[in-house]
Amino acid sequence: MPQTIALLTDFGMRDAYVGMMKAVMLRIAPDAHFVDITHSIQPQNVRQGAFTLLTCHRYFAPGTIFLVVVDPGVGSIRKPLAALAGDYYFIGPDNGVLSYAVTEHLDAQIVELSNPAYWLSAVSGTFHGRDIFAPTAAHLAAGVPLAELGQPFENFYRIPPPYLEIAGSVITGEILHIDRFGNAVTSIGELRRAATDGLYLIPPFTEGERRYPVRTFAPAVTIQVKGFSLAGIRHTYSEVAPGEPLALIGSSGYLEIAVNQGSAASRLNLTTGDSVILEMG
Amino acid sequence: MPQTIALLTDFGMRDAYVGMMKAVMLRIAPDAHFVDITHSIQPQNVRQGAFTLLTCHRYFAPGTIFLVVVDPGVGSIRKPLAALAGDYYFIGPDNGVLSYAVTEHLDAQIVELSNPAYWLSAVSGTFHGRDIFAPTAAHLAAGVPLAELGQPFENFYRIPPPYLEIAGSVITGEILHIDRFGNAVTSIGELRRAATDGLYLIPPFTEGERRYPVRTFAPAVTIQVKGFSLAGIRHTYSEVAPGEPLALIGSSGYLEIAVNQGSAASRLNLTTGDSVILEMG
Amino acid sequence: MPQTIALLTDFGMRDAYVGMMKAVMLRIAPDAHFVDITHSIQPQNVRQGAFTLLTCHRYFAPGTIFLVVVDPGVGSIRKPLAALAGDYYFIGPDNGVLSYAVTEHLDAQIVELSNPAYWLSAVSGTFHGRDIFAPTAAHLAAGVPLAELGQPFENFYRIPPPYLEIAGSVITGEILHIDRFGNAVTSIGELRRAATDGLYLIPPFTEGERRYPVRTFAPAVTIQVKGFSLAGIRHTYSEVAPGEPLALIGSSGYLEIAVNQGSAASRLNLTTGDSVILEMG
Repeated sequence: MPQTIALLTDFGMRDAYVGMMKAVMLRIAPDAHFVDITHSIQPQNVRQGAFTLLTCHRYFAPGTIFLVVVDPGVGSIRKPLAALAGDYYFIGPDNGVLSYAVTEHLDAQIVELSNPAYWLSAVSGTFHGRDIFAPTAAHLAAGVPLAELGQPFENFYRIPPPYLEIAGSVITGEILHIDRFGNAVTSIGELRRAATDGLYLIPPFTEGERRYPVRTFAPAVTIQVKGFSLAGIRHTYSEVAPGEPLALIGSSGYLEIAVNQGSAASRLNLTTGDSVILEMG
Repeated sequence: MPQTIALLTDFGMRDAYVGMMKAVMLRIAPDAHFVDITHSIQPQNVRQGAFTLLTCHRYFAPGTIFLVVVDPGVGSIRKPLAALAGDYYFIGPDNGVLSYAVTEHLDAQIVELSNPAYWLSAVSGTFHGRDIFAPTAAHLAAGVPLAELGQPFENFYRIPPPYLEIAGSVITGEILHIDRFGNAVTSIGELRRAATDGLYLIPPFTEGERRYPVRTFAPAVTIQVKGFSLAGIRHTYSEVAPGEPLALIGSSGYLEIAVNQGSAASRLNLTTGDSVILEMG
Repeated sequence: MPQTIALLTDFGMRDAYVGMMKAVMLRIAPDAHFVDITHSIQPQNVRQGAFTLLTCHRYFAPGTIFLVVVDPGVGSIRKPLAALAGDYYFIGPDNGVLSYAVTEHLDAQIVELSNPAYWLSAVSGTFHGRDIFAPTAAHLAAGVPLAELGQPFENFYRIPPPYLEIAGSVITGEILHIDRFGNAVTSIGELRRAATDGLYLIPPFTEGERRYPVRTFAPAVTIQVKGFSLAGIRHTYSEVAPGEPLALIGSSGYLEIAVNQGSAASRLNLTTGDSVILEMG
């Protein structure tokens, strides 16, 4: 079975940067398969990269190697890392971009990429994606064990979780991402419908050893966002008329504000960072 | 020979949606090859998706699996389908997005995806691309027969063909697509130059059992669009001076309005839906 | 080992053009691997295509086939070509888009694609990428020798190198490319830091038989661009404060104007073609 390397960067598709990384990897691991998760993370937006990696990585097969390059501090003292967590490999800079996904797994082994035998022979000061991270991913794909890549790393940098506050029957979160359709993905999650009796809230973020407990609440909820009030949590867009706004549990398990066959971002004037309040009835 | 799965969606490249679909498919069919036709169909523009699939699918090898997700009615009563037509597999929602391509072939077998054994175990209400369509494509690639996926489906939904009217020596059509270069692809086609004697018109669209007959017309034609008049049908852009407009038979067999080394859309102010009139001299 | 075909075009990702080329290639070479370098070359910008190919091609493994389609003269008298140079195959129109990369290698064999046995059976007047260049790339991947594709070609068209003038201690160049981050890549290169004693300048462009000699200069340099003056050449972005401009040797070996964690293009109002002056102290 070919080894999958999944790429997540802020390099865009206009320049040849992604192509150069793939070129480097194919020299080391000619049978690797690449999946482009996205290269359209906003330039140097570490948090958006971290959240995207968190929400998509579990759909990949065990053994997948995630090559994650959102790296505003390239060439500085921030360390290049590789981690094995939950049967997945994660490669990227120690700036928090890996931290949401790695922290999801309890068994993380993290190494600093300190062994230059697994880098390109000439390392630039501006493109570690090509010169350090890509060759590392390819060597892992070709069978090099994690421990060969460098020494164990202790002070893994974690970025704060998205804003989420639970006070009695009120949950306050924020809009984390506006997708191509204008759907607004919030930090309120993971809301799961139980088969029989309402909703379960399983906040997906963990800080250090603390993990929010599972809790149940009533199905009668109201969502407030930008002065609009939405009643109830729907299953699908088509439960409201075309053009009408709704709240539902999006495909990644987070509360989402949408408009049936339209853009919630345009219709309700939503932006990343906007506050979202969920009140249980 | 690895099985090719060709993807055509309106998911864009900014979000991780396409990556998640590929992740799901690689778990089921690790040797599948993916070809991205485009993910830039305008959000929820079923007709644009249908036309794109029609014009490109014949270039693929027999046995190719087309995973087509332009799905404004996701989660509603519209059915998820798979079809085998003309040696190609087509997977997508029953909203017409498959209908231009499937209707081109006379031997279509269509099934409703009613067997949840071939879906992800948890199906969201908003992302059937990941939860139903992608696993189905992968199971087909892995050798599952079409008939296993569900029951035969009868009332296949067809969207109306692009506007095309033939009245004596006048053909009226519309602009269907503006491409990256500003070329305007029209519904007038399939115009083919015969080796010796003028042009043959083979309208590519079929309604029910009706198919427009082949017909010949004189090479002296005039094309009217947005108040401009273009004389004759050219073979290549360079038959006119740089910056000048022309009409030619585009690479997919449709009449196209172009500007040599420029953008017809900008120069002639063209938009999707604009009327185009071809008069035979 | 599967054969890699690397694609570089101005087709964009919105239309199905790239997908059609891949479809055609997979029919001929089902095991080929594709790497998309970029499809976002500005429409018909031959020079940008040539420079991108130059800077990225050496990262690929020997034997890689580069399919390069930036082709404003499609269908005109410009010839379709294939070249073998420096162990790489290059396929594209004879308009200069291949010339920077091919000229880098001293051993180029160039043939005109004159043997229609290796094209699609029907060749359009507007899409040689699909009808001539893609099938040629796939036949090479499938083992057809270069000489089978057509007759030797003599008058290979070369576009002028980017502007670069060396007058005593002053080097004048131009901005060639603004990348996604707003970094401005200049024609001044290849500047390499020696381990011990300053900088070596190895201009990467060759005209005919002429090649600029290697020369050394002092590390104390000043860069002038758009009225701004930058002192010294840095190794990494983080050597200056966030938001501050700097000059460094970019990842492809060219002098680059950047802003730490920001966009030099916005901050200094830079555009392609702007003059850049480097003065050695």
